[in-house]
Amino acid sequence: MKSQWLQDSIMMTRGVGARREPRVHHLTEALQSSYHYTIGPYSAPVLHVQPGDRVVVETRDAFEGKIKEESDKPSELLTMPYLNPQNGPIIVEGAEKGDVIAVHIEKMSPRGADPHGFCCLIPNFGALTGTDYTALLNEPLPEIVRKIKIDEENVYWSRRHTLPYRPHIGTLSVSPEIDSINALTPDNHGGNMDVPDMGPGSITYLPVRSPGGRLFIGDAHACQGDGEVCGTAVEYASTTTIRVDLIKQWKIDWPRLENADAVMSIGSARPLEDATRIAYRELVRWMAADYGFDQWDAYMLLSQCGKVRLGNFVDPKYTVGAMISKHYLK
Amino acid sequence: MKSQWLQDSIMMTRGVGARREPRVHHLTEALQSSYHYTIGPYSAPVLHVQPGDRVVVETRDAFEGKIKEESDKPSELLTMPYLNPQNGPIIVEGAEKGDVIAVHIEKMSPRGADPHGFCCLIPNFGALTGTDYTALLNEPLPEIVRKIKIDEENVYWSRRHTLPYRPHIGTLSVSPEIDSINALTPDNHGGNMDVPDMGPGSITYLPVRSPGGRLFIGDAHACQGDGEVCGTAVEYASTTTIRVDLIKQWKIDWPRLENADAVMSIGSARPLEDATRIAYRELVRWMAADYGFDQWDAYMLLSQCGKVRLGNFVDPKYTVGAMISKHYLK
Amino acid sequence: MKSQWLQDSIMMTRGVGARREPRVHHLTEALQSSYHYTIGPYSAPVLHVQPGDRVVVETRDAFEGKIKEESDKPSELLTMPYLNPQNGPIIVEGAEKGDVIAVHIEKMSPRGADPHGFCCLIPNFGALTGTDYTALLNEPLPEIVRKIKIDEENVYWSRRHTLPYRPHIGTLSVSPEIDSINALTPDNHGGNMDVPDMGPGSITYLPVRSPGGRLFIGDAHACQGDGEVCGTAVEYASTTTIRVDLIKQWKIDWPRLENADAVMSIGSARPLEDATRIAYRELVRWMAADYGFDQWDAYMLLSQCGKVRLGNFVDPKYTVGAMISKHYLK
Amino acid sequence: MKSQWLQDSIMMTRGVGARREPRVHHLTEALQSSYHYTIGPYSAPVLHVQPGDRVVVETRDAFEGKIKEESDKPSELLTMPYLNPQNGPIIVEGAEKGDVIAVHIEKMSPRGADPHGFCCLIPNFGALTGTDYTALLNEPLPEIVRKIKIDEENVYWSRRHTLPYRPHIGTLSVSPEIDSINALTPDNHGGNMDVPDMGPGSITYLPVRSPGGRLFIGDAHACQGDGEVCGTAVEYASTTTIRVDLIKQWKIDWPRLENADAVMSIGSARPLEDATRIAYRELVRWMAADYGFDQWDAYMLLSQCGKVRLGNFVDPKYTVGAMISKHYLK
Repeated sequence: MKSQWLQDSIMMTRGVGARREPRVHHLTEALQSSYHYTIGPYSAPVLHVQPGDRVVVETRDAFEGKIKEESDKPSELLTMPYLNPQNGPIIVEGAEKGDVIAVHIEKMSPRGADPHGFCCLIPNFGALTGTDYTALLNEPLPEIVRKIKIDEENVYWSRRHTLPYRPHIGTLSVSPEIDSINALTPDNHGGNMDVPDMGPGSITYLPVRSPGGRLFIGDAHACQGDGEVCGTAVEYASTTTIRVDLIKQWKIDWPRLENADAVMSIGSARPLEDATRIAYRELVRWMAADYGFDQWDAYMLLSQCGKVRLGNFVDPKYTVGAMISKHYLK
Repeated sequence: MKSQWLQDSIMMTRGVGARREPRVHHLTEALQSSYHYTIGPYSAPVLHVQPGDRVVVETRDAFEGKIKEESDKPSELLTMPYLNPQNGPIIVEGAEKGDVIAVHIEKMSPRGADPHGFCCLIPNFGALTGTDYTALLNEPLPEIVRKIKIDEENVYWSRRHTLPYRPHIGTLSVSPEIDSINALTPDNHGGNMDVPDMGPGSITYLPVRSPGGRLFIGDAHACQGDGEVCGTAVEYASTTTIRVDLIKQWKIDWPRLENADAVMSIGSARPLEDATRIAYRELVRWMAADYGFDQWDAYMLLSQCGKVRLGNFVDPKYTVGAMISKHYLK
Repeated sequence: MKSQWLQDSIMMTRGVGARREPRVHHLTEALQSSYHYTIGPYSAPVLHVQPGDRVVVETRDAFEGKIKEESDKPSELLTMPYLNPQNGPIIVEGAEKGDVIAVHIEKMSPRGADPHGFCCLIPNFGALTGTDYTALLNEPLPEIVRKIKIDEENVYWSRRHTLPYRPHIGTLSVSPEIDSINALTPDNHGGNMDVPDMGPGSITYLPVRSPGGRLFIGDAHACQGDGEVCGTAVEYASTTTIRVDLIKQWKIDWPRLENADAVMSIGSARPLEDATRIAYRELVRWMAADYGFDQWDAYMLLSQCGKVRLGNFVDPKYTVGAMISKHYLK
Repeated sequence: MKSQWLQDSIMMTRGVGARREPRVHHLTEALQSSYHYTIGPYSAPVLHVQPGDRVVVETRDAFEGKIKEESDKPSELLTMPYLNPQNGPIIVEGAEKGDVIAVHIEKMSPRGADPHGFCCLIPNFGALTGTDYTALLNEPLPEIVRKIKIDEENVYWSRRHTLPYRPHIGTLSVSPEIDSINALTPDNHGGNMDVPDMGPGSITYLPVRSPGGRLFIGDAHACQGDGEVCGTAVEYASTTTIRVDLIKQWKIDWPRLENADAVMSIGSARPLEDATRIAYRELVRWMAADYGFDQWDAYMLLSQCGKVRLGNFVDPKYTVGAMISKHYLK
């Protein structure tokens, strides 16, 4: 039985496939065959789905399984830009520029026997180090690999610390119109946003810019803090079940998200203030367009009750979500 | 009877006045006489307190009561830099450079009969407009004043929207060592941080840099969203009760905060990424210094469970708090 | 007869085609046929050249000729992302990842009878306005089109002001390895850098990342100030003559430039400090790798004699060049 | 005999003391007695001058002479915030809020027998390192001190490199209205701008905000590159001769500069784009207010011929100058 919020969601009230009985597709490793490191209109589709269909996706971890032990060296095993492998592209039948693809994440499970996740300190990557862009002359931080046992209850970080299993999808995208953007960079097509709210119980809305939308998905995290500050979360191979739908002629410029409690606009940019400005402006516009607010009242009300989530704070563009409780949208 | 977290807090376990019976001081409007618009070592103290004392402070609203009606024009009534009036300075006996002043906010009540708060859209001020620093050629946004009835339960924003009364102190400071900084700007002395967590049930720790610490306080908000995006919260005149204590020889570089659930480091800077970096680095250092973490483990763990609060996103420097649940500090 | 600096240049001393008699290719509008709005590995080459060859390129203006009169409306005639049309890709035979393609701009002439350039104020674009990234609620600036007569001596801006004709190429690129990046955005592949020094008498060095390098060129400016602050220069259709060469196994991460007087490293990023950091770090590394400097001496010397050029200050990433006089490299 | 540009300068045509025979004051080390590390309204004046007077100032180097040998450790000898000692405050008789103080730098000479300058790499300070604000976990760069012989011709950097003596004043200020700002930070009162153009042959205009203006000066550099990237220039003790004048009721918000060739507006902020925006917006406004430009024409013309100078790129706020040739102001 569906929860009430889901029945009332934008996806279920406006999605063209909302009332269809979902057909279930399995996007296995074998079907995917070669994963993608760039998100654009130039790759061959692996799957065609109807709006309302369900897809069970076998995602690889962000290191594509190359990091296996704590003694491994990321700098030796990982090669830019061949990181953060993505499943897809999935063609959503009927999706055209100006539409929105909705992705309801239903379930995320660790994949494989004795599942583990990996967290790495990678040289010149992370929030508290010089990087390729914040280009400094300091020596890099040490390389460290943590191998972490996980199950559907917990993330067993260390003897001292066990964290709850709170999975989410780090990278979720449609294709840009003519560009192809590496899987490490978020932008207005989605991409590597690393928003912890993007897990089971959330619906993400993505602006379609090319025929079929061309959905990409990957980068499962067993848990993640705000900002993913060391550069990586607990990266793991997942079985992720999504339901995909299509909302016709909903013009949005940036990704949006909905869950039981709130709606969120998501911006990705540098500097971080620009990501935050985008997120809040999109939220003001959304409230004005769909929820009957005068834009100045929306702006001033958000000054009293808006919430901010820092998504990634380590990628070539940073990601911020601006939220308002659904309570204020009635 | 005190709550357990408070008894276990840094303030109550390390404060030199923690076991004293507090003497109560009343810092009334009359005693304050002239409020301050700059926070530094050059103003005359209004009060001397012993560590562990309680002070009941009559704060003025950030517009110093000059905005009275919705038809008022901020651009006509407000004059830079004579904004955000501060109570103080309060001398904490025995405070010296290298110590920390702890401020436990015990209670905040609206002051006066028929209390109201004010929220203003001020030209060239706010997160989604050009400003004096983000200097553009666009026309400013309209001036708008909202007068909002408040009580200790609610903030009556509009017919459609009632918000819960969730008060906090926007500006809390010790004096810089030799500088004097206007009350609109936060920095490592505290200042106009606008962190919503800095309300009743929180303890703020401020690094002493001048004799007696010279505590300033003001800028009460009846509620505020993350970022205070339109530039102002529900600004009101409050009666704020604080207990002040002194922790000797605790070397901290930036303000910190503690409540029942979490500890937080607070950074203020532009661009916003620098505020966030400061907050997270201070938290890493705190975990390493006081909670037995290896710094790399702290950094990597925060990547999994750190939380970020956006404080002000409109002042000359932006403010970010980085938090970790006390659960992980045991 | 070649000038001495050119004979001594990196291109002429290390280029594999430096001593060849150049074969001249004509990349006409007809041959180009369809111009490109994204720079990547997915488009069909229009030309193959040998290292050392000369190419005479017919570039279109950045508006692709759609703006014809001062009464035209950019917002009606221009469609994102179909802007800044590029010639290419040109395959340089033998170019492989890890090599460098050198582009000596020999000559730039206005094209067509009665040549004019256009400068436009485009809504939400430019340095002193809110934009898609610096997302604000202010109304956009007015749309304005200036049509400016040009010849090889002057740019006839207005009755009051005549500017010297100082042409340069705004957009010069090789292909990224797997991404395709719109022609409006600069990055480490080159792109829309808008560096005024990139005109006749300069050699640009670009890091090869895909087979043949895949050279793109476009966006001629009859003159341009530092930052191109209003968003556009005097944009015109040009005949641009370049000589192209190949330097094997020169590992550079970002574009570089050389002219008679100086060498320059070029960084593109946001915030602007990151672009500047990249430019200066690359210059430090260059001085250490090729000119016998200790890196700390290079860093400290640049603190005394480094020069900075602001290229574009309006695109999705900003561009900065850091220079040192060749006098100090002897 | 005065040069023509000087006779035509704003200072000489609008200064109330321009036609007076200057009285010469000597602000010696002895008269200064204690130098200042913070610039504000709270310090006692050391000198009163009439508009049009000349002052010969004995400035100390930015390290106040504490660094004497290349074996010295800045981290042991320097103490924040007691750095960058300033002469002053000098009261300019008649200066009131809303006026401008003009400072013509006439001459700068090294002071003392066998004059030397010092350039230091100071831990966590500089453009290519983590700092107190860009707060990272990397190890700091090495501490290095360079002792450099100087005379009025040259700066003898090393056996390999001799640089021309191109002195300028790094820090030039009036007092803020109520704040006091450390001598390391530039803002709209002037401060530690480190603009290489601010040397002999330049006039700087500073906005008066307190009675008498309260002029501070210090931080002589024997030469400096754009950005002062390693954090320090060739810092030296100077004898600097300035002529000071007063322009009544000229409302400017940020410092401005004039020399023989150009006028410049100066902005200081972070991120660097905000400093650049301020500088260019002030220049647009200046052209519109004083030189007969429509603001949109000024904006679009600067897009063709504006020049940018990066001043400091290492202080708590970065400094940028935007210039236009006087040729275009006729």
